[in-house]
Amino acid sequence: MTTIEDLIARIGPLDAAAMEAARARHRQLTKPPGSLGRLEELAITLAGIVGRPIPAVERKAVVVMAGDHGVALAGVSAYPQAVTAQMVANFLAGGAAINVLARRAGARVVVVDVGVAAELPALPGLVARKVRPGTRSMVEGPAMTRDEALEAVQVGADVLEAEAARGLDLVGTGDMGIGNTTASSAILAAMAGCPVVEVTGRGTGVDDAGFARKVAAIERALEVNQPDPSDPVDVLAKVGGLEIAGLVGVILGAASRRIPVLVDGFISGAAALVATELCPAARAYLIAAHSSVEVGHRLMLERMELAPLLRLDLRLGEGTGAAMAMQLVDDAVAVLAEMATFVEAGVSDREAAEESAR
Amino acid sequence: MTTIEDLIARIGPLDAAAMEAARARHRQLTKPPGSLGRLEELAITLAGIVGRPIPAVERKAVVVMAGDHGVALAGVSAYPQAVTAQMVANFLAGGAAINVLARRAGARVVVVDVGVAAELPALPGLVARKVRPGTRSMVEGPAMTRDEALEAVQVGADVLEAEAARGLDLVGTGDMGIGNTTASSAILAAMAGCPVVEVTGRGTGVDDAGFARKVAAIERALEVNQPDPSDPVDVLAKVGGLEIAGLVGVILGAASRRIPVLVDGFISGAAALVATELCPAARAYLIAAHSSVEVGHRLMLERMELAPLLRLDLRLGEGTGAAMAMQLVDDAVAVLAEMATFVEAGVSDREAAEESAR
Repeated sequence: MTTIEDLIARIGPLDAAAMEAARARHRQLTKPPGSLGRLEELAITLAGIVGRPIPAVERKAVVVMAGDHGVALAGVSAYPQAVTAQMVANFLAGGAAINVLARRAGARVVVVDVGVAAELPALPGLVARKVRPGTRSMVEGPAMTRDEALEAVQVGADVLEAEAARGLDLVGTGDMGIGNTTASSAILAAMAGCPVVEVTGRGTGVDDAGFARKVAAIERALEVNQPDPSDPVDVLAKVGGLEIAGLVGVILGAASRRIPVLVDGFISGAAALVATELCPAARAYLIAAHSSVEVGHRLMLERMELAPLLRLDLRLGEGTGAAMAMQLVDDAVAVLAEMATFVEAGVSDREAAEESAR
Repeated sequence: MTTIEDLIARIGPLDAAAMEAARARHRQLTKPPGSLGRLEELAITLAGIVGRPIPAVERKAVVVMAGDHGVALAGVSAYPQAVTAQMVANFLAGGAAINVLARRAGARVVVVDVGVAAELPALPGLVARKVRPGTRSMVEGPAMTRDEALEAVQVGADVLEAEAARGLDLVGTGDMGIGNTTASSAILAAMAGCPVVEVTGRGTGVDDAGFARKVAAIERALEVNQPDPSDPVDVLAKVGGLEIAGLVGVILGAASRRIPVLVDGFISGAAALVATELCPAARAYLIAAHSSVEVGHRLMLERMELAPLLRLDLRLGEGTGAAMAMQLVDDAVAVLAEMATFVEAGVSDREAAEESAR
C-alpha cells in the first residue's frame, strides 16, 4: 500500500524535453503551424505527462466511485437515495451511459463501492471497498470524520494502483451518488469563499423548491461545520463525500505514476479541486474533459486554470464526459504520431515558401 | 445524372415522427432527462434526418474538394499555390491530418480535383473532375462564369451520388485550396452585406501585410464584380471557388438523400451558406462540426442557426473538424441505441420517485 503522502511526494513537473520534442515534431507535420489548435496543445501536454515525445495512450479506464450522501434525505435531489445502488447494478450490467460511451472509447469501467448506503450483493466486477454506508448529513455535523475521508482517499489510490498494475495509459474519473452535486457545491463554496447560491445548480434536475432546499442545506452545512479552506482534507471530510474522496485518491495516484487524468464534470471537478489544493503539482496531469451545465463548474475550472475540451451541456456525471473526451485524446496522439512531415510528403512548408518568394 | 434542380426539389422536412420516437426513448433511458445535453439533441436530429427512431450511422466518408484560386497570386496566403497539388498527393498517400482523423473516425476519404491549377498525374484514388485549372482572379473580374460554377456544383452532386451508391450514412465536408479563406470571406461579406474586415481572418497564417492585402483584395473583388446577394449562384461564381461550389453539390446531394452532413469549418461553411440560400430546407440536414478560429465563422453559423459541436480552435480545413465530430455522432447514436431503460435496469425513474414521495 502506498500512502497518500508518498504519492504526493512523487508528483513532479511535466517532462519539458518531451514537450519540446512534441512541439518540434508538430512544426514538421504537413499543416500550417498551430492549425489544429487545442488538439496540438493536448498532444504536447500528453507528451509532457507521459515523458515521451510521442505518447502512447492505449489502455484506458474510467473509474466510477459510488457513494451516498446523508444530505440527500433533506430533499436536495430529484431522485431517491436508492437510485445510487440501482445505478451501480446498472453499471455492472453494462446498461448505463458510461458503459456505452466507455465501450466506444475503448475504455474499461471500474466500479467502486466506496460508500453506497445500501448493502450491495456481491455483484461480479464490483470493487467492494465501502468505508461507511453513506456520509452523515452535513447539515447536522461533519459528513465524515477526517479518518474516514482519508480512508476513502486511500481506496481511490489503491484502486488506481491496481489498475496501473493491469496496464493503464489514461484514466477518466466518474461518480455516482444521489446528492453529490450538493456536496460538490459545498466544497467549492468553502474553498472559494463565495456565496452558495452562485455555485449551486439544479443537479439532476430539482425544481424550484428543491433548489431552495439545496442552497439552504449547503449554507447551513457551512455554518454548522465551519470547514477550514486552508485544510483541503477538513473541507472534504466535513462537507464532501466518500466518492469525491475516492476520486482524490485516483487523481493523486495517477499523477504520481505520470498517467494523464481526464476529469469529468462537476463532482470530479470537486475532487480535482481538493487534489490540487493538497498537491498543486498534480494540476499539470489533469485534462478537463468538458464544461458542465452546473453553474459552479466554470469557477471550479478557472480556479484550476483548466480549459474544458468539450462543451456539450452535459450534467450526467458517471465519467460520461471523460469517456467522450478520450476520443479527442486518441485523435491528438494519432495526429502527432501518424501524420507525414513536409519532407516525407514533398510539401512546401512555410519557410520554403518564404524562401522562394525572396 | 441528377440535376441540381432535381436535388433541391427532393429536399423535404425532417421526419417528425422519428424525432418524437427518439425523444420518447431518451426519456426511458437510465439517466435524468436531458442530462446528456447536446448529445441527446444530436441523436434526435439524426433520427429526423434518417427517418428512423434509432438511426444507424455506420458508413462514413469525408469528401475533400480541391481547387485553386486566382486571387492566391495576389499574396493573400502564407503558402504558394503549388501547395494545393502537393497536399492532394499527400491526401492520396494518406499522410495528411484528414487521413489520420478519418481513419480514427472509420471514414473513407474521397479526394476530388474539381479545379487544382496544376495538371495532376493520374494518382490512384483521385476523382479527376477538373472544371478548370483554378479560378480567375476575382480582383479583376468574376472568378468563374455562372456555367463553370454550376458545373462544379454538379461535380459535387455526382460525387455524392457515387458515394451514396457505395453506401453512405454520414458525410463530412472537406476542402483544400490555397486562397480559399479569401473566397469564403468574400462570399460571406457579399451575402451578409457586412464590412470585409469584420469577416476576414488570418487563414493559414498571413502576417499583417498579407492580411491587409487580403482585405483589400476582397473589397476590390466585391466592387469589381458586384455580386447579387439575392442570387447565391451569382455570388458563388463571382467571388467563390471551385471547391466551394463542389461542396455545395455535396451538401444538396446528401440532403436530398436524407444523409446527415457534418459541415467542417469556414470554407465548408461558405458552401453551406450558398446551399442553404439556394434551398433553405437543406439547413435541417446540416450539423456544424466545430467553430473555427476564422473570425467570420461565427457570423456564418449564426446566419444558418447552427451551433458547433466542437470548439478546439481549429483552422486547418480538409474536413478535419468534421472527422473529429463524427465520433460524437457515433456516441450520440450509441447512447440512444444501447443504453438500458429504467424498466430494463430496474432503476427508479423520476416519476416513480415522485410517486413514492407522495
